[in-house]
Amino acid sequence: MKVAILGATGETGASILNALLESTEPRYEITALVRPSSMEKPEVIALKEKGINVVAADLSGPEDELARVLDGIDTLISAISATGLLAQIPLINAAQAAGVKRFLPCCFALIMPPAGILKLRDIMRKKEQVINHVKKVKLPYTIVDVGYWYQLMLPRLPSGRIDYALPITLGCIPGDGNTPSAFTDLPDVGRWVARIIADPRTMNKMVFAYNTVLTMNQAYDMLEKASGEKTERSYISEAAVMEGVARAEVDCPSPDSFDYFEVVKYQYFNALGIRGYNTPEYARYLGYVDATEIYPDMKVTTPEAYCLVDLDALLDELVGGGDEAKDSWPA
Amino acid sequence: MKVAILGATGETGASILNALLESTEPRYEITALVRPSSMEKPEVIALKEKGINVVAADLSGPEDELARVLDGIDTLISAISATGLLAQIPLINAAQAAGVKRFLPCCFALIMPPAGILKLRDIMRKKEQVINHVKKVKLPYTIVDVGYWYQLMLPRLPSGRIDYALPITLGCIPGDGNTPSAFTDLPDVGRWVARIIADPRTMNKMVFAYNTVLTMNQAYDMLEKASGEKTERSYISEAAVMEGVARAEVDCPSPDSFDYFEVVKYQYFNALGIRGYNTPEYARYLGYVDATEIYPDMKVTTPEAYCLVDLDALLDELVGGGDEAKDSWPA
Repeated sequence: MKVAILGATGETGASILNALLESTEPRYEITALVRPSSMEKPEVIALKEKGINVVAADLSGPEDELARVLDGIDTLISAISATGLLAQIPLINAAQAAGVKRFLPCCFALIMPPAGILKLRDIMRKKEQVINHVKKVKLPYTIVDVGYWYQLMLPRLPSGRIDYALPITLGCIPGDGNTPSAFTDLPDVGRWVARIIADPRTMNKMVFAYNTVLTMNQAYDMLEKASGEKTERSYISEAAVMEGVARAEVDCPSPDSFDYFEVVKYQYFNALGIRGYNTPEYARYLGYVDATEIYPDMKVTTPEAYCLVDLDALLDELVGGGDEAKDSWPA
Repeated sequence: MKVAILGATGETGASILNALLESTEPRYEITALVRPSSMEKPEVIALKEKGINVVAADLSGPEDELARVLDGIDTLISAISATGLLAQIPLINAAQAAGVKRFLPCCFALIMPPAGILKLRDIMRKKEQVINHVKKVKLPYTIVDVGYWYQLMLPRLPSGRIDYALPITLGCIPGDGNTPSAFTDLPDVGRWVARIIADPRTMNKMVFAYNTVLTMNQAYDMLEKASGEKTERSYISEAAVMEGVARAEVDCPSPDSFDYFEVVKYQYFNALGIRGYNTPEYARYLGYVDATEIYPDMKVTTPEAYCLVDLDALLDELVGGGDEAKDSWPA
């Protein structure tokens, strides 16, 4: 199966690319679509060195040229950045013209109501606009959402020793910490996608692919058990969350800006921790197929293993991986 | 099962009301929700005379009062007029507060992409806004769409004798007249709904309930056969349709105005006759459950029977229903 990926150098794109490379049944022939101006970037050169077919694709260029680039592609996966979502519109037209058999628009996110919750709703609205365009041109599609990444769920440890692995952390626990939420290990996102795109049952469906469901309290418990360190639990009340949401309504920085997450995180708190949208039940209510039900044999990283492996990997990095050092590590 | 209907005096609402009254298994206990200012209107008094429980409900009043009105209602069906769609928002909040177990938002229309086709898209956008609000508050729902009514598909006959039964007619045949489209007999809309709301499989689903699929040429053929009259077939080319669509983009009268249909009909031509959205295949692609598949035993009016019955009923009306007159009627 010939698969083209847009955004293969991003976090989600790389997860998908690696999983497709790994897959032997089916075997995927992969093309990475790259902006013409990015062809010489180190991360793109790294793709070529991995043996990936890298092709320049200008999303702002003529649609028929784009269609020529997509000629013969079976499945097109878009893992474009949040700021480029609407650039998918001409891509969709080109994919339709080229006869692409399945398109995965850039979703790969939390389960949310279609509108009205996140200031991220600007992003949600654009995602919806893209999906509506797909439907207007009748392009076969699969929407994949994945829940929250393990990589973003963990709090800092007092020792600071896993800080490098926590690019963004929620920092607080919304509500009482007992609202369940679905999580996925970032490398598994691609593994789920590799199953989903080979499966006719997921054609023209929304699929929720997640590894586990945890409350924030359970996530903290697990990290404490794995690290032997006691985390500080800072709870933020529903009232304080809603105040933060209201502030974001009044003044929200651009999604590119550094302050953006500080502002929208209250909307995450509300969606994940108070309203409890990011769950398999709510996904089913919205019409999603549950990937854990259609692939009961799927092996994914459990949160326990993630906590341990992550700490082990850290230890490897910090002390050279000596067994002695590992043995002294409480786990 | 306790069912409340909003808009019971409209075309769709009356179809649903009558079918629920007819139903014996299950038996429905029906409440008609009526604007306080409409309580003395003749059509509302007619509802009371039928033995329907008529209750005043002020959609612009306090939500907790509305919730009290909905107390104990299992299923709430909205068949509100196209101009009042957003009035459903407080109703949804009240239904959620009252513990309503299933809500049918006002849809009961053609299958369309969620955006971008109809100037009716203002209506589509409001319908979407309503559905998004339902999902935000997690109210259990069923969306029912029904295709085009038989009542609107027939052309005028040269004799003019069925004109009274054709409040709106498309007048032309878009394209070559060979694009399939789904149709439903208006009284069957309610019969489908009576099945759907008793069925747990349709909970939180979109359902497409249609009687048949016909091309416009086939519909004309059928009427000719039933009436013995030759219809005039006025085809409108794709280019002329697209010109009409473009004109509507520039200047569209209000949905209340008399000219509205004249302007938006090109968008219907495009959607139904050129793009072919209003089909079971496209509905399935959008994620709808096909009612004809889950209720294979459902007895509905065929288009052939509709053409005949309609002409018979007309004859009854025109000549007092004498058998003699009927016999002279070519059918």
